[in-house]
Amino acid sequence: MSKDEVILLDFWVSPFALRAKIALAEKGVEFEARQEDLLGEKSELLLKSNPIYKKVPVLVHNGKAVNESTIIVSYIEDTWPTPSLLPPCAYGRATARFWADYVDKKLFDGGSKIWRSKGEEVEVAKKEFIEILKVLEGALGEKEYFGGDSFGFVDILAIPITAWFYAYEQYGNFKVEDECPKISAWIKNALRGRVLRVVILNQRKSTSLLAC
Amino acid sequence: MSKDEVILLDFWVSPFALRAKIALAEKGVEFEARQEDLLGEKSELLLKSNPIYKKVPVLVHNGKAVNESTIIVSYIEDTWPTPSLLPPCAYGRATARFWADYVDKKLFDGGSKIWRSKGEEVEVAKKEFIEILKVLEGALGEKEYFGGDSFGFVDILAIPITAWFYAYEQYGNFKVEDECPKISAWIKNALRGRVLRVVILNQRKSTSLLAC
Repeated sequence: MSKDEVILLDFWVSPFALRAKIALAEKGVEFEARQEDLLGEKSELLLKSNPIYKKVPVLVHNGKAVNESTIIVSYIEDTWPTPSLLPPCAYGRATARFWADYVDKKLFDGGSKIWRSKGEEVEVAKKEFIEILKVLEGALGEKEYFGGDSFGFVDILAIPITAWFYAYEQYGNFKVEDECPKISAWIKNALRGRVLRVVILNQRKSTSLLAC
Repeated sequence: MSKDEVILLDFWVSPFALRAKIALAEKGVEFEARQEDLLGEKSELLLKSNPIYKKVPVLVHNGKAVNESTIIVSYIEDTWPTPSLLPPCAYGRATARFWADYVDKKLFDGGSKIWRSKGEEVEVAKKEFIEILKVLEGALGEKEYFGGDSFGFVDILAIPITAWFYAYEQYGNFKVEDECPKISAWIKNALRGRVLRVVILNQRKSTSLLAC
């Protein structure tokens, strides 16, 4: 593994780049995070590695580029299988992919709608977001993590977005903990993980978005 | 395999259900396609199997439900590995997933925008759609299929949507063949496959959407 060159084209505040960082940290893979100046000029490596979307994160592994955060996490799982992030059985994998897809389609955009809205629209956006969280809370059930006993694929994709929850709460005037106590407990529990805590706390310090 | 109970909750005109049917046919898996009355009352099995989206396709395999067409095709690949639809190497799989995701995000919605638009908007939508096709043509390159020599994951997700191309051409007053000859050749080539041809021709006969 020491011969591998693993570069992450990163932007410190991006929850999507954070997904890749957490996955690499969970697998114990050393990597270089290269910050992109997204407000200025994008690097040649970014433009060459992600010519379609021209955005971070990009994982460049031994010169080969992988784009899109969910696909990067799948690639990390395929390349460094231990510890596994997805269950071994086909049905378990399909279930994880379903909730990963739900998170991708709903969570970040649903939350962003709260602080992008004005007046009465804020209330509508807040209700929609709480509905999304309640669906996720149903999927979590009584489990510790979305996949069961261990922190896995869906957790990795969802947890970076929770760094924005404080902002959503402030704009929407509500508390995730009051609406979805199990989701709130899952966040605290996930943050207890050593590697994850280091990464998230670092992110939190930088963005100052989280309350706790 | 004969003991497996494989039911597809289907709607005959759905390109997304067609993805599942093609994947099952490629794997040689026998299945029962149960038509849903989406304009009337949805079946209890559909509402129970897909409580989040309440839509087709749903694959019910030995009583366990898998939702969302791309996830269903991944499940079919995981469950019946031969012939493989995804390459064995992590990078090849990531590349296939990237283009599958591009197809999912762009192709159907991009095309639908043409016939949903009016007046000058049609021209804008047409240009955007042709740009999407040109990006896909770049990904296809000189290869026979998106993954190389054999019909695979990206082809299965993209080919059902080409059944709508005739409608897009009629509304947008253009020919895919003139704009993207390699994509046009890929469609014809893909339709040459026995199983695929049977499924697509059946679909085509039903929908009367394709010209050739």
